[in-house]
Amino acid sequence: MTTRTERDSMGDIEVATDRYWGAQTQRSLGNFDIGRDTFVWGPAMVKALGILKLAAARANAGLGEFGPDSSAHLTDEQLAAVEQAAGEVAQGALTDHFPLVVFQTGSGTQSNMNTNEVVSNRAIEILGGQLGSKTPVHPNDHINRGQSSNDTFPTAMHIAVAVELHQRLYPGVQQLRDTLAAKAEEFADVVKVGRTHLQDATPVTLGQEIGGWVAQLDAALAGVRHAEQGVLELAIGGTAVGTGLNAHPEFGRTCAAQIAKITGLDFHQAPNLFAALSAHDALVALSATLRTLTTALMKIANDVRWLASGPRNGIGEITIPENEPGSSIMPGKVNPTQCEAMTMVCTRVFGNDATVGFAGSQGNFELNVYKPVMSHAVLESIRLIADACVSFDEHCAVGIEPNTERIEANLASNLMLVTALNRHIGYDKAAAIAKKAHKEGSTLREAALASGVNGDDFDAWVVPADMTGR
Amino acid sequence: MTTRTERDSMGDIEVATDRYWGAQTQRSLGNFDIGRDTFVWGPAMVKALGILKLAAARANAGLGEFGPDSSAHLTDEQLAAVEQAAGEVAQGALTDHFPLVVFQTGSGTQSNMNTNEVVSNRAIEILGGQLGSKTPVHPNDHINRGQSSNDTFPTAMHIAVAVELHQRLYPGVQQLRDTLAAKAEEFADVVKVGRTHLQDATPVTLGQEIGGWVAQLDAALAGVRHAEQGVLELAIGGTAVGTGLNAHPEFGRTCAAQIAKITGLDFHQAPNLFAALSAHDALVALSATLRTLTTALMKIANDVRWLASGPRNGIGEITIPENEPGSSIMPGKVNPTQCEAMTMVCTRVFGNDATVGFAGSQGNFELNVYKPVMSHAVLESIRLIADACVSFDEHCAVGIEPNTERIEANLASNLMLVTALNRHIGYDKAAAIAKKAHKEGSTLREAALASGVNGDDFDAWVVPADMTGR
Amino acid sequence: MTTRTERDSMGDIEVATDRYWGAQTQRSLGNFDIGRDTFVWGPAMVKALGILKLAAARANAGLGEFGPDSSAHLTDEQLAAVEQAAGEVAQGALTDHFPLVVFQTGSGTQSNMNTNEVVSNRAIEILGGQLGSKTPVHPNDHINRGQSSNDTFPTAMHIAVAVELHQRLYPGVQQLRDTLAAKAEEFADVVKVGRTHLQDATPVTLGQEIGGWVAQLDAALAGVRHAEQGVLELAIGGTAVGTGLNAHPEFGRTCAAQIAKITGLDFHQAPNLFAALSAHDALVALSATLRTLTTALMKIANDVRWLASGPRNGIGEITIPENEPGSSIMPGKVNPTQCEAMTMVCTRVFGNDATVGFAGSQGNFELNVYKPVMSHAVLESIRLIADACVSFDEHCAVGIEPNTERIEANLASNLMLVTALNRHIGYDKAAAIAKKAHKEGSTLREAALASGVNGDDFDAWVVPADMTGR
Amino acid sequence: MTTRTERDSMGDIEVATDRYWGAQTQRSLGNFDIGRDTFVWGPAMVKALGILKLAAARANAGLGEFGPDSSAHLTDEQLAAVEQAAGEVAQGALTDHFPLVVFQTGSGTQSNMNTNEVVSNRAIEILGGQLGSKTPVHPNDHINRGQSSNDTFPTAMHIAVAVELHQRLYPGVQQLRDTLAAKAEEFADVVKVGRTHLQDATPVTLGQEIGGWVAQLDAALAGVRHAEQGVLELAIGGTAVGTGLNAHPEFGRTCAAQIAKITGLDFHQAPNLFAALSAHDALVALSATLRTLTTALMKIANDVRWLASGPRNGIGEITIPENEPGSSIMPGKVNPTQCEAMTMVCTRVFGNDATVGFAGSQGNFELNVYKPVMSHAVLESIRLIADACVSFDEHCAVGIEPNTERIEANLASNLMLVTALNRHIGYDKAAAIAKKAHKEGSTLREAALASGVNGDDFDAWVVPADMTGR
Repeated sequence: MTTRTERDSMGDIEVATDRYWGAQTQRSLGNFDIGRDTFVWGPAMVKALGILKLAAARANAGLGEFGPDSSAHLTDEQLAAVEQAAGEVAQGALTDHFPLVVFQTGSGTQSNMNTNEVVSNRAIEILGGQLGSKTPVHPNDHINRGQSSNDTFPTAMHIAVAVELHQRLYPGVQQLRDTLAAKAEEFADVVKVGRTHLQDATPVTLGQEIGGWVAQLDAALAGVRHAEQGVLELAIGGTAVGTGLNAHPEFGRTCAAQIAKITGLDFHQAPNLFAALSAHDALVALSATLRTLTTALMKIANDVRWLASGPRNGIGEITIPENEPGSSIMPGKVNPTQCEAMTMVCTRVFGNDATVGFAGSQGNFELNVYKPVMSHAVLESIRLIADACVSFDEHCAVGIEPNTERIEANLASNLMLVTALNRHIGYDKAAAIAKKAHKEGSTLREAALASGVNGDDFDAWVVPADMTGR
Repeated sequence: MTTRTERDSMGDIEVATDRYWGAQTQRSLGNFDIGRDTFVWGPAMVKALGILKLAAARANAGLGEFGPDSSAHLTDEQLAAVEQAAGEVAQGALTDHFPLVVFQTGSGTQSNMNTNEVVSNRAIEILGGQLGSKTPVHPNDHINRGQSSNDTFPTAMHIAVAVELHQRLYPGVQQLRDTLAAKAEEFADVVKVGRTHLQDATPVTLGQEIGGWVAQLDAALAGVRHAEQGVLELAIGGTAVGTGLNAHPEFGRTCAAQIAKITGLDFHQAPNLFAALSAHDALVALSATLRTLTTALMKIANDVRWLASGPRNGIGEITIPENEPGSSIMPGKVNPTQCEAMTMVCTRVFGNDATVGFAGSQGNFELNVYKPVMSHAVLESIRLIADACVSFDEHCAVGIEPNTERIEANLASNLMLVTALNRHIGYDKAAAIAKKAHKEGSTLREAALASGVNGDDFDAWVVPADMTGR
Repeated sequence: MTTRTERDSMGDIEVATDRYWGAQTQRSLGNFDIGRDTFVWGPAMVKALGILKLAAARANAGLGEFGPDSSAHLTDEQLAAVEQAAGEVAQGALTDHFPLVVFQTGSGTQSNMNTNEVVSNRAIEILGGQLGSKTPVHPNDHINRGQSSNDTFPTAMHIAVAVELHQRLYPGVQQLRDTLAAKAEEFADVVKVGRTHLQDATPVTLGQEIGGWVAQLDAALAGVRHAEQGVLELAIGGTAVGTGLNAHPEFGRTCAAQIAKITGLDFHQAPNLFAALSAHDALVALSATLRTLTTALMKIANDVRWLASGPRNGIGEITIPENEPGSSIMPGKVNPTQCEAMTMVCTRVFGNDATVGFAGSQGNFELNVYKPVMSHAVLESIRLIADACVSFDEHCAVGIEPNTERIEANLASNLMLVTALNRHIGYDKAAAIAKKAHKEGSTLREAALASGVNGDDFDAWVVPADMTGR
Repeated sequence: MTTRTERDSMGDIEVATDRYWGAQTQRSLGNFDIGRDTFVWGPAMVKALGILKLAAARANAGLGEFGPDSSAHLTDEQLAAVEQAAGEVAQGALTDHFPLVVFQTGSGTQSNMNTNEVVSNRAIEILGGQLGSKTPVHPNDHINRGQSSNDTFPTAMHIAVAVELHQRLYPGVQQLRDTLAAKAEEFADVVKVGRTHLQDATPVTLGQEIGGWVAQLDAALAGVRHAEQGVLELAIGGTAVGTGLNAHPEFGRTCAAQIAKITGLDFHQAPNLFAALSAHDALVALSATLRTLTTALMKIANDVRWLASGPRNGIGEITIPENEPGSSIMPGKVNPTQCEAMTMVCTRVFGNDATVGFAGSQGNFELNVYKPVMSHAVLESIRLIADACVSFDEHCAVGIEPNTERIEANLASNLMLVTALNRHIGYDKAAAIAKKAHKEGSTLREAALASGVNGDDFDAWVVPADMTGR
């Protein structure tokens, strides 16, 4: 491996020639070898850092010279190079140049510096300069201008989370929701046994059951969307402690506006920058709405697998697609594997949320130093929920079908239908019929006829569909 | 103890003469002896059940005769007695007649029946009848008319939670918030050391620090208020499985309107009654906003106790009231006991929220049978947060004062002020001065003067207040 | 209310005449009005404090005069009075004199002082002195001698927890475990369908299923018992910061030995007193074993209610006792209410454990100030699990019976029995028979006979009991 | 990409020519696209599956022919090829052939089949056969012989966890523990201020403080090692439902013995195979001990960063290594980045533990279908703790040094030393001196001398080291 020398305030350090990162990134690589296999930042956060640096460069350029050092102002040519470089990061083209892991400085300083180093080196390259020379584009003076890790990293956290919500979570969950809504309509007339306490109860339609799931998803999605409002508030402009020291007074607002423009999302500067650095309650709140969403998904996935249980000795009122061999010898054994993947995702999201809540409570003074672990956990939850919803939709929900034969047999044997007899023969006689049927293992109809009810009357009176309130 | 005989479908059972409850309550007393010391339902839930039954009686009366059994309709005299009886429950006058614990049937059936029994027996008493006779007011036929435990109990849960939010949580948290907001304004000019990573950083004002706390509380309260919207949606009208079987089609909406009228809160029937019985995502979501609120409270309480640490060997930049003997021999040792009570409450609320989330995910088919434990945990969190905020406010926050001497001494010794020299003598020389001061243990001013800076210049240039961005 | 004047270092304060507590308790009553309804310390902790003070008095007496102040040594007469007073606390006779709540100083100082005050005042009364006079028995000099809240409160926490484990948890869980073990033996020959992924699988016996539950309980109980070892280590002797300042060097060991003698449990001084004051990992670890126990209980309660689901449209392979009216019209609808109470308890224990883990991580320097909330949560979990196990045992487990008819019908229809044909007619032919049965909705036997298998052969070959490996 | 055709009971499917996996793996790739970036199984689990298959092949070979199908018995040549193939998996040489993610079937079926397919295809290759031909080594008949996913996957889970404990966790934590133990000894005579409630308290030595951390780590490690005992119990031999159907009666015990031989760890068959398939309480219990370990690590990391806080306006009693640029202008600002990484890891482990506990409670009947998510979370926790301990040790703990000047200055100003005067001049006079010093901001010595204490006496009496109980 050939290397070049990079330098920071601690001195020289060798970096691989084909990497854009600089000294601080390289140092962090050596200092934080924690969970390297799976905790390197992925595209979501890296792109957000690129978006931020692109917006910051444009904001600084627009605000003009500021402060004692006129060299901090980018020429048009420099700006163009920085925009190209940051744009490449924003589009994910340089993700391989972000080798750092989540478990680093709690402010995300090293990932902020990683971005500064990559953008400046790439811009230097575009401008024909020498990597590591910090000229004509300096990682701190230019790329980090008017910024501190303490405001940039939480800004990037929010960008990443909001973008992932829009690109992954909303469409993924909506796709499943729409499939279920269509199924609810399709099965609006499929009358079946209701169940409370796991015990047979009065009838519902399959459409009503599935409609309940849709209502849960709608409410949960609305909750996520409301919590997103907090995530659209950005810490940018606070710099090191929230006071905005060393930044142009308009930088934060301007940069936030640029971020909104680039992403198409309604980002804006947070109303209180001290809170925005020292607490991440917006992420805690958002994470909690993801947890609520998974309580809904868990209910749905559990209902699906119980309704599909069997084929002979379970409930078996719906069938779901068979996607893989269940048992090598047992036809009809369709394991509810998508339900299992979904509910496992739910337990993971619960765990991530526990992490986020705990970490969110641990700020001190002007800084919460659990930024990386919080953003990583939220991004992971978003990804998993979105992927699981798409998978569950495509490989399970779309194929849900009523097992009409079983549904009707169950309904016919359901003693709770006796309720319909009350108004015709009185409560006491009705109860006696139900008791007789239960004791003898007969159907209600059999017991009713044996008790003197006319068969035609019974058929006219006991109409399960009329009990569903449709 | 003298007893009377009460009866339900399982037969006779003896009940103490001076208790209004009936057979099903008495049976539950024997069947669920779990955590009796502390898990008997308290006033919040009992009053809510009373409100519900009062509203239900009025709704049924207003809707007129319905269904085959005209005897289910209350006469005006009966209605008046029921209104009085339910009103007494609603006002907490009969809480001693609610002896059941949280850990019972997961639908809250027995507490619903407890209410039916108490209201009917008390109404019977008012009407001159015999307790236990179920006439002229029947616990099921009249008090539970058009209802099922499956829709009444979640309705009462929501009533209790929303009422407690308005009566306890909002005023309690607001009281603390307002005190802090006043302190933020009062200390707007107290310039002090900022701290990030627990390390000395550039200055902030004490007002800014406290203002950050206020911003956290404002945002958290807004989150709770938004989640309250979901709690205002009531399951009433769904009866046993969500279909509304056996209830007048207008009963749910009418009853919800009555509840709104009684409480003055904007209650209304839930848009999807299947979801309202089989899931309690609204409570999961609300509980999570309480958790977010405690992440804010934990940050605040921790900041307060660290800022007040000392008196000599800590940070000591604020003082807090001394409410009890700290150390018998050590004057000035003021233990931050209110902070400790507050952060303990926070850990409890986290635990309650874990309970609620878990329980909320475990519904099956038409019913979630974790209703009692969920509502209990949410009510406990509300109570604890509200009480802790009032206590913290009255015994701690109101007495927060800056320790000016310490603040100024710290600020004077803070090397981060060197940042202010940059623009006057250049970064390199400024850094050298800071290094010199750090190495020699001197003040920045001493090091600067020893490095050739004029004293008057130093005093003019290094003005911490100018670095706070006020 | 008549009062007397009590006094501490902050001055005079009025206390109700009929209460033994003193100034610091009274002050705490005013300062910490948080969750008063349900968070007043109950008997478990109060008794433990009494045991501790009894042991401490005996230990100090045994060690003789120590330190500069000979008046701190109790005369025999004083000792006898203190032993009587502390003994009354230890036996729960004076619990009404402990009015403080959990949410107080995080070291439990006020509850330690409450104990000192009650024991000294009661001893003064016994000796004919005047309440509040602090003579001839002084709350600090005598009752708290050689102690600090920082070591006494965690000592009392451990006493309370270990005693409750032995008095409640072990017998309660064991009772349920023994019932289930007897059922496992009783139903060792009841062959039934096994289920994996909720799908029909090869046979097991009901005894094997229940035996799996017993194995879970045995392992979980062993885990609790192991964690109890850490709880038997006491902080006593550490005084304020772990160094034992102001205590006789043998006091801690001697006091721990006295505690062991009084309780009959193997208490001893912790090997590292700094850790014993500043961390409560022993309680964190114990709480976690309670959580593991509830994962087992949740599995068991869920299995029971699913196996008992029905009566017609569920699995219905077992019956459980009917303890209360299920549905007023629906005979045979036996709601699994004890299962519901049990699983609700499990979610509560999960939440308590989350509280304990969080609080346990928050120690600083020489003290963890979450002692009260941690001990309260652990004690609550112990109580709830114990009560729930007894309730579940007496009202559910003892009455579990196989529904032989349903079990046999299910087993007969279970296509997985086809596995038994493999070795006789080959895999391919066997699979074809299963497929045919699945497709046609027939039994395996019908399909086999239709495929040319002899009926006698089928009956000889397909013997589910032989597939259970008993 | 060139492909070959693989086949399972659902038909043909194309697989990349250079991959050893077969049809079921390929199908799972299409069916479970959930979190692909980071949730593909890593080496720990893949190696464990290889170890299992190696042991199973040897066990089956040793037990000889069994069952009706003699072709299931491997020839010596076949066995050698299988041993080589499974050995390559066990050593991590074929990890690239395991492309599946955690979120799949909850029994881990597809990863078990992935292993069967890779081992059989690789063995076929070694024997000169054709990939995908299933001859002469069949993935099911030979590699999965006497096994089911339901017992193999939990067996592999336990192997992976126990091996990772021994290879990563124990050495990693021990390394940190040993460094701290050495520091505790080295600083045994460094007397410093103790702190309780964050307030100044009587003295301790730095060695005592650090020794408390060591005691926490020792106890936590002992807890993990005890929980490991449960992990050493293997489900192997239970096959599909715990009865061992289709396996040689000695297979489970023999296979477990082979696993013990290969790994050098004391693995053995679980005493109850029904519990071993349907519950994973052993992992729940182990995960909880990892959580307890992180409560200790959090306390330690927090103490370190607070003790190192400053450099001027914090506590500053220790210094820690400077590993990266802190502030570009601020010498001496050493951010406690390793502490931050460590505490972030702790919050992640708390989250993972929440996942594991939740998932562990969700078994039904003969199977818990949360196996993959549970094992993944436990393995992640082990990895993160181990890595974080090594990182914290090498980049922070080894460099902890007392800041003697600050420690002595703090100690000198600490008013709590007044306790030492009590026995010489009486409590009242001592307290008056402390009050005077507090009020005037003077040292105790100054106040004492001003109150008439002789300077030499003061110096002889007030010796902080004598108060530490060493």
